[in-house]
Amino acid sequence: MKLSTIAENIRIAAATSLEANPSHDPDIAGVAAVDEAVAGTLSYIEGDKFAQFVATTGASALILPQNEALQAQATERGIAWISTADPRLAFARAIALFYQPYRPAPGIHPSAVIDPSATYGENVSIGANVVISAGVHLGNDVCIHPNVVIYPGVRVGDRTVLHANCTIQERSQIGADCTIHSGAVIGAEGFGFVPTAEGWEKMEQSGYVVIEDGVRIGGNTCIDRPAVGVTRIGRGTKLDNLIQIAHGCQVGEAVVMASQVGMAGGVKVGNRVILAGQVGIANQATIGDGAIATAKAGIHNDIEPGEIVTGIPALPHKVFLKASAIYRRLPEMYKSLQKLQRAFEAANSKPPQ
Amino acid sequence: MKLSTIAENIRIAAATSLEANPSHDPDIAGVAAVDEAVAGTLSYIEGDKFAQFVATTGASALILPQNEALQAQATERGIAWISTADPRLAFARAIALFYQPYRPAPGIHPSAVIDPSATYGENVSIGANVVISAGVHLGNDVCIHPNVVIYPGVRVGDRTVLHANCTIQERSQIGADCTIHSGAVIGAEGFGFVPTAEGWEKMEQSGYVVIEDGVRIGGNTCIDRPAVGVTRIGRGTKLDNLIQIAHGCQVGEAVVMASQVGMAGGVKVGNRVILAGQVGIANQATIGDGAIATAKAGIHNDIEPGEIVTGIPALPHKVFLKASAIYRRLPEMYKSLQKLQRAFEAANSKPPQ
Amino acid sequence: MKLSTIAENIRIAAATSLEANPSHDPDIAGVAAVDEAVAGTLSYIEGDKFAQFVATTGASALILPQNEALQAQATERGIAWISTADPRLAFARAIALFYQPYRPAPGIHPSAVIDPSATYGENVSIGANVVISAGVHLGNDVCIHPNVVIYPGVRVGDRTVLHANCTIQERSQIGADCTIHSGAVIGAEGFGFVPTAEGWEKMEQSGYVVIEDGVRIGGNTCIDRPAVGVTRIGRGTKLDNLIQIAHGCQVGEAVVMASQVGMAGGVKVGNRVILAGQVGIANQATIGDGAIATAKAGIHNDIEPGEIVTGIPALPHKVFLKASAIYRRLPEMYKSLQKLQRAFEAANSKPPQ
Repeated sequence: MKLSTIAENIRIAAATSLEANPSHDPDIAGVAAVDEAVAGTLSYIEGDKFAQFVATTGASALILPQNEALQAQATERGIAWISTADPRLAFARAIALFYQPYRPAPGIHPSAVIDPSATYGENVSIGANVVISAGVHLGNDVCIHPNVVIYPGVRVGDRTVLHANCTIQERSQIGADCTIHSGAVIGAEGFGFVPTAEGWEKMEQSGYVVIEDGVRIGGNTCIDRPAVGVTRIGRGTKLDNLIQIAHGCQVGEAVVMASQVGMAGGVKVGNRVILAGQVGIANQATIGDGAIATAKAGIHNDIEPGEIVTGIPALPHKVFLKASAIYRRLPEMYKSLQKLQRAFEAANSKPPQ
Repeated sequence: MKLSTIAENIRIAAATSLEANPSHDPDIAGVAAVDEAVAGTLSYIEGDKFAQFVATTGASALILPQNEALQAQATERGIAWISTADPRLAFARAIALFYQPYRPAPGIHPSAVIDPSATYGENVSIGANVVISAGVHLGNDVCIHPNVVIYPGVRVGDRTVLHANCTIQERSQIGADCTIHSGAVIGAEGFGFVPTAEGWEKMEQSGYVVIEDGVRIGGNTCIDRPAVGVTRIGRGTKLDNLIQIAHGCQVGEAVVMASQVGMAGGVKVGNRVILAGQVGIANQATIGDGAIATAKAGIHNDIEPGEIVTGIPALPHKVFLKASAIYRRLPEMYKSLQKLQRAFEAANSKPPQ
Repeated sequence: MKLSTIAENIRIAAATSLEANPSHDPDIAGVAAVDEAVAGTLSYIEGDKFAQFVATTGASALILPQNEALQAQATERGIAWISTADPRLAFARAIALFYQPYRPAPGIHPSAVIDPSATYGENVSIGANVVISAGVHLGNDVCIHPNVVIYPGVRVGDRTVLHANCTIQERSQIGADCTIHSGAVIGAEGFGFVPTAEGWEKMEQSGYVVIEDGVRIGGNTCIDRPAVGVTRIGRGTKLDNLIQIAHGCQVGEAVVMASQVGMAGGVKVGNRVILAGQVGIANQATIGDGAIATAKAGIHNDIEPGEIVTGIPALPHKVFLKASAIYRRLPEMYKSLQKLQRAFEAANSKPPQ
């Protein structure tokens, strides 16, 4: 594909080296990381850390930031370029011109076990050994990879993809344009037990899980249904692998959670929140819109909208940075204090009261 | 169902508003969270945080704590109530009157692959594509959801439920009345490798996993078998999702572990221990009966019975609370110390020795 | 099996009690943990913590360290012994003389669904309900347990074992002599999203996962493929359960990771690195050869070869130990400082400037 064709198709306002030299419009066979790129590939540069690779990359074309020095450097090396305010987004769109993930053809594999009461729309793909229980409804263009199990009463919206070996339990409501990865468990009964003299008594989990449109659920992530009401994942939210969303959590729209985040029951997460890897959130806490928790933060209390928190227990990020900088100097500080105490005592007739 | 019928069936000593007004015995169609409840539903109030909802809930009936003010408030709003020392337990039992989780009918799906040497009791339910290997024995009323795989020599006790896509590996012994959730992996070989000059040499894991009666294993939780002996989960213990129990751990009875807890090899956990989310326990540590580890605690040493620990490394909870309260003021403390040092030096002819 | 036969077969330089008394060559029926061993079993002693069990074990034979006192004690109790510099390795080899993990016989189960374009070597074992997609190639002696799903274009090397219910996604390249445990998800699309005004836009993940020879992947571990290039796990590396390896990570050879470790995109891990349980590593960090991160460490920056780090954020281990020892005394330190400030003020006419 010609670079000029790529530039037209990535739907981003961009300057290109083709304006200066329309005849230098290389054929691009694929995309590559900048430090691995070979002739015929397109790569991209983002951030100071990668800018150095303009000098060494083997790529035939680059997506660059709006940086004239980098553009000049690329031109000098004979590298055609596209320059845009968001090189990463442009590169994402360029990848999609060359690659689409594997998607089985529509059709129902003869080994699939489908309850007669289940219904489905047009062009569904149902893979080998898929099990679909009573009352399930699948929308149009739904794609279910092999060995997925769907319990009764589940609904799956149009164009949603369920990857191999995931399990969707009873009455889960999954929106359109979702992707649920392998091994994910959606809608299993929440971890509800009440202490009694005879041990832990189960609280049945009569609620269900709602996953709105455009949600991505990572591999082996678990989203449990609650005792009453719903556990909800809002529109456009993206969850990475191995995440725990307990019974009754309410997760907003366009939230991003990195892998191994865990939240206890009844947590409320606002819109556009970002939770980095291994963050934990305690029962019933509320995280305001746009808040950010950095990796491994342990959140016990409510977090204000827009706040950035770090640490265990979580503190405002700037407070944490200052405190943790001192933390490593604690032994030295301890010694200074002792030294000062002794000096004071020596300088004064009696010890401090 | 009449509220009076519910009150009879929850098997808890309770006062009710029906004693004062037997004619106000509303029909209850279902259960609901107090802030979402509508007419015809029963809800419950527990703790100060939720007490406010008595004033606004749409529920027709409430399970209340033994609090006369709340009772009076409910009565005034025309809400029938049940009052008990343990509203949460009463509500759990009320849910069970309206809801039971999905359970396939007894029978063996024709697509199940069952070794001829496997045996099973009465009324078992074996779902589609289940694979049962040689020498497996299933008790009465066992329910195995679709796509479960059971390796050779496994025993599963009466009434135990295995959810879809879980894997039970060789020789695991699972008791009666257990629930094992989707994606769980029980009895896989422990992570045993010995360093040699040529790399890591595998130590074969010849032991097996024992899960006693009444245990609950969450989704995608892993419980490994040891090199020799057993890995044991004691009677009535409840494990949440995504937990790691390494080879040779001995977990006591009525223990509760929240999600993403991890324990290394040979850990001993006493009875009635509570481990909150993301707790980690190092090799061979012993946790005494009734101990509690709060979320994210990192335990390297033995914990005494009844002790509450917090932090990384774990400290007695009260010590941690005090230390972490100071932690955030470290920068201020550091400045105070420097200021005092300077003042001392200024006030005395020579610096502290 | 005679102890003398075991001694010959464990391929380790060792002294034995048989040299002194060739006629005391007990029959060994199996292996056991030292505190559970009964007559007829072989066990081992390693480290001071277990040395006490020489006095009480029921084992008929022991593998001992090179410690004459322990040898004499065993001899006195009538316990035959093997003495070696590495008792754990010797015991690992002894276990393997008595036990090999379950391995289905070669053959292809009739319920397996295999694309006609897939190819495979000799003596493969393909279990029930396994799904193998187009263009897959399996080497000789590959063993695939039931309900595994393999997406198109995957290659699996000789003698590799895939346990039940794992999923290998498109174009993953798996070496020889690997073991991939149940529920693991290899080669799924990495968590790549780019923020736009309309929400998170997916970056397609056109790369693939390479797993070199002799790698062990634990249960429910996830290894994602990257946008471009490869995610690589080096030869002989051993990963425990529930680990997250994000898109584009480069993990070296003979690395060991305990369970629940998580690493964000583009992390580089050198050879022979050891990551203890629940360690987290941020985007693009580089961990030098032979470095060690202790349990729960949170790594944001590059780690030098051979360095040992601890804490969140990770510090050199010795720095952390000293700082955390002071941490618990912070309240006392805070009080001392306040007391000293007051004493200074009292001793001087005006407060410190």
